[in-house]
Amino acid sequence: MNRKKYVIGLDYGTLSGRAVVVEADTGEILSQAVKEYPHGVMDRDLPCGTSLDVEWALEHPKDYLDVLEETIPAAVRQAEISPEDIIGLAIDFTSSTVLPIDQDGTPLCMLPEFETRPHAYVKLWKHHAAQPEADEINALLTERGEIDLPRYGGKISSELMLPKALQILKEDPEIYERADQILEAGDWLTFILTGSRRRSASMAGYKGMWLEGEGYPGHDFLKALDPRLETYVEDKLSTDICPMGGRIGMLNDAWAQKLGLLPKTAVGASIIDSHVGLPGCGIAEPGQMMLILGTSSVQLALSETPYSGEGVCGAVKGGIMPGYYALESGLAGVGDIFGWFVDHCVPASYKEAAKAEGFGIHEYLTRLAGKLAPGESGLLALDWWNGNKTPFVSVDLSGMIVGCTLATRPEEIYRTLIEATGFGTRLIMEAFEHAVPVNEIRACGGIAEKNSMLMQIFADITNREIKVSASKQTAALGAAMYAAVAAGSEKGGYDSIFDAAKAMSRMRDETYRPIPENVAVYDSLYREYCRLKDYFGKENPVMKNLKLLRQKAKNGSC
Amino acid sequence: MNRKKYVIGLDYGTLSGRAVVVEADTGEILSQAVKEYPHGVMDRDLPCGTSLDVEWALEHPKDYLDVLEETIPAAVRQAEISPEDIIGLAIDFTSSTVLPIDQDGTPLCMLPEFETRPHAYVKLWKHHAAQPEADEINALLTERGEIDLPRYGGKISSELMLPKALQILKEDPEIYERADQILEAGDWLTFILTGSRRRSASMAGYKGMWLEGEGYPGHDFLKALDPRLETYVEDKLSTDICPMGGRIGMLNDAWAQKLGLLPKTAVGASIIDSHVGLPGCGIAEPGQMMLILGTSSVQLALSETPYSGEGVCGAVKGGIMPGYYALESGLAGVGDIFGWFVDHCVPASYKEAAKAEGFGIHEYLTRLAGKLAPGESGLLALDWWNGNKTPFVSVDLSGMIVGCTLATRPEEIYRTLIEATGFGTRLIMEAFEHAVPVNEIRACGGIAEKNSMLMQIFADITNREIKVSASKQTAALGAAMYAAVAAGSEKGGYDSIFDAAKAMSRMRDETYRPIPENVAVYDSLYREYCRLKDYFGKENPVMKNLKLLRQKAKNGSC
Repeated sequence: MNRKKYVIGLDYGTLSGRAVVVEADTGEILSQAVKEYPHGVMDRDLPCGTSLDVEWALEHPKDYLDVLEETIPAAVRQAEISPEDIIGLAIDFTSSTVLPIDQDGTPLCMLPEFETRPHAYVKLWKHHAAQPEADEINALLTERGEIDLPRYGGKISSELMLPKALQILKEDPEIYERADQILEAGDWLTFILTGSRRRSASMAGYKGMWLEGEGYPGHDFLKALDPRLETYVEDKLSTDICPMGGRIGMLNDAWAQKLGLLPKTAVGASIIDSHVGLPGCGIAEPGQMMLILGTSSVQLALSETPYSGEGVCGAVKGGIMPGYYALESGLAGVGDIFGWFVDHCVPASYKEAAKAEGFGIHEYLTRLAGKLAPGESGLLALDWWNGNKTPFVSVDLSGMIVGCTLATRPEEIYRTLIEATGFGTRLIMEAFEHAVPVNEIRACGGIAEKNSMLMQIFADITNREIKVSASKQTAALGAAMYAAVAAGSEKGGYDSIFDAAKAMSRMRDETYRPIPENVAVYDSLYREYCRLKDYFGKENPVMKNLKLLRQKAKNGSC
Repeated sequence: MNRKKYVIGLDYGTLSGRAVVVEADTGEILSQAVKEYPHGVMDRDLPCGTSLDVEWALEHPKDYLDVLEETIPAAVRQAEISPEDIIGLAIDFTSSTVLPIDQDGTPLCMLPEFETRPHAYVKLWKHHAAQPEADEINALLTERGEIDLPRYGGKISSELMLPKALQILKEDPEIYERADQILEAGDWLTFILTGSRRRSASMAGYKGMWLEGEGYPGHDFLKALDPRLETYVEDKLSTDICPMGGRIGMLNDAWAQKLGLLPKTAVGASIIDSHVGLPGCGIAEPGQMMLILGTSSVQLALSETPYSGEGVCGAVKGGIMPGYYALESGLAGVGDIFGWFVDHCVPASYKEAAKAEGFGIHEYLTRLAGKLAPGESGLLALDWWNGNKTPFVSVDLSGMIVGCTLATRPEEIYRTLIEATGFGTRLIMEAFEHAVPVNEIRACGGIAEKNSMLMQIFADITNREIKVSASKQTAALGAAMYAAVAAGSEKGGYDSIFDAAKAMSRMRDETYRPIPENVAVYDSLYREYCRLKDYFGKENPVMKNLKLLRQKAKNGSC
């Protein structure tokens, strides 16, 4: 009998990185280790004291190396397995999280001469200071009539890679000049681990404006943007794009030694952290929708045809799984909204009662809200506390609640906010269905694991069965699947991500099934939701007007 | 020099009655005494244990006598004046608050044979169990084409007298039969104090469907409603209607002795409690609007022409002050809404901070909210937590708030709720202005006295100067003015309520003046409010639909 083989999944989030050791055949997670980034998100100043403008959000690449060096050995030790049986590793990373490095792979910020220069550091995905550059790019795309191409998702966000690179060029051209590569942090890690300059099709496709068969934006466009950018692709990027599920290379000797792994362990292409849950939830074909429920949400579905519009992106073929387009959207706020409510709107008496009964306040409210029937609160909300992504793609939209009476109680508002996120989720699902039917939902994330009342409401609102991932580390597990594919079947892994997803994903036995009476009530409420959605999203600009008045008042009071 | 003369104002509310002793020349309140009704509002059972259906709300007339017998002697004693110098008394009372009495004036419920019979007791203004009778009356009015006559205010409320009398007739005909009179509690008190069957034009006009020059509804109409009602007016009412400011009669010997007053002290006609603030605030001519701000609000203004529509009543000439129509409306919820918010939506941290700083929670929130500029919250609400009276006259409408973000804080919501009641107040003011301009607002009531932030917001929203009554007992003071008119000038009183209002009202020196910058911002917000008001009131029935779904859910879960 063959010895068991193992893979390592590395999950890099905004504040910490995590390694899991996983059985390649079953997907069982044997061990895990987490490390918070020592520098955290730097949005006020650099370690040396240089202060940052608003909208900046940097990280320190040394933190990512610490994660590698501490969590991998710890997880392997804890799993009590031999490094010889570890056949591959792969990384998921936030994106577009980019940095400039020198020829050896050293981040410029780690060279003493550049340590005081903000542009030498990692620009985190949520660094929004490149908005002027994004505006320039959009203006040029509009001028050239390219703005509607699905490849650009309708509009370039300041979070993408090109605005960030352009910001470096404009504000600190020396850094731009000195950079041998400007690349995603995920690609940087696979570069130093393997020496290969191949880059992930996931990050290039979704965040780098690269498209299979067409490549990056052309010289003309880049030159028109800035003459110094004309050879940006040749100078700073790599045109060697590794398809998803592919292998970037083999672990080099130096890093093998540092990590306590064998040299030549397979290293997979990095993948965007919010995408990795798709195979992580065992989705390997069109018809199923992934739903990650956390502070915000992500919805993904495979499709055979491209689709973009109304806030849904889905034009990158093979961006997550080979051969398929992956539709993507999500709600700008989910757990964030419930957290806001609990922090700012729940009276002392409820907190005391929760404490007396031994519950957390979310759990206490959930128990009370769970006793209500659909429609019983008499309330309805638009879940736009953090803006709206689908269908209006607008940060100027805001939350609304209607139906309040003197008899309205906190648990009724709490349930209504949950229902509103359910309606928002259904709206996205229905947008997906322009391209591909959704027959089933597979969910993961903290809220999906913990709040069964919410999950039942989502099943009732979407009228779909919902299965929940059995793993609390669906993202890291997803990364481990890509590691197993990078290793290949002859080493004990798999030949495709589809095979890995089927074999290694683990869903809970229980399924949330729609309850017909509830479905009928929620259908009525959803119709009301849609009417209000159109009214506040399109017909009456009151939300935008309120935001303008707010800004005026704030400026006036400065 | 003549000796000072005094008058007594009696203010009967929903839960207690109050007597004040007032200097007739200056309006200064020398003393006051309050008594809570021992039986309170009976909405579950009678003292004997007979249980009541939902929507019932009864009171015990003995409680009203207790108020007379305890508060008048106490207030007179405390004022240290001689009863000889007391020239009159008058009463304001909730309405329509009605009871059946026998020929001697004894309430039927105080006869042992009827003490177990709910219909023998006082039906409080907010007794809503006569809704089926109100529906019948409205159906008949519609059938006869009389529904739009201003005399009926567009629609008969179940709170009026006729539905309540009809309910007695239908459900306990023996009580109806046995009643020598069915009358307002205010008229009952003046009947027993004086022996006169004259009734108040205020209550007859506003609550009894009586109109000067036309009288009560005719025999035909009453017969069509129920054959036994044909002679309802002759049998149970009195057609001797005393104009406002008139004298019902003189205090009889028995009651003079009980109260420690002189026989033949003048007794004025009773007046509806919410109306008495009009002269109480010194309003004696068109152009000023009275605003009582409490749990709900009342707005009143004198007009030379009648007006009814969009929730505004104003078809009773001389109903408050002789010769004028009085326009009336108000918000169904004001302080109630702020109370709801504080009870159910303010987090523990705020209550603790308020306590630590030595403030009540309303005061604490007011201080925080007062630091915000108009528009700064980015929020806007419709103040319909308790339904809407003007312009939609609908209990099916409900509260709405828009503009919520993750940065929204409790004090911002609190201020927004205040602003919403300000917008609602402006809406009513503008409805009044169909008939008469409003140049100034005169306010009274607990909120007007206490919350200067709210008053400034109201001044800014209405763009009107607002003066606040100097008295905390504006209602009782108003009743005392009617007492002084009942006594007449030769006794040391006045010959008209206009003279009394001018001489006896006392406003604070300070005035809330509109601040032009704030007026401009609130004009913008008011336009948004009006657009949302039309949308939710007329264009989208979502509020009604939510209420229906709520009722269905509640019935389903029984």
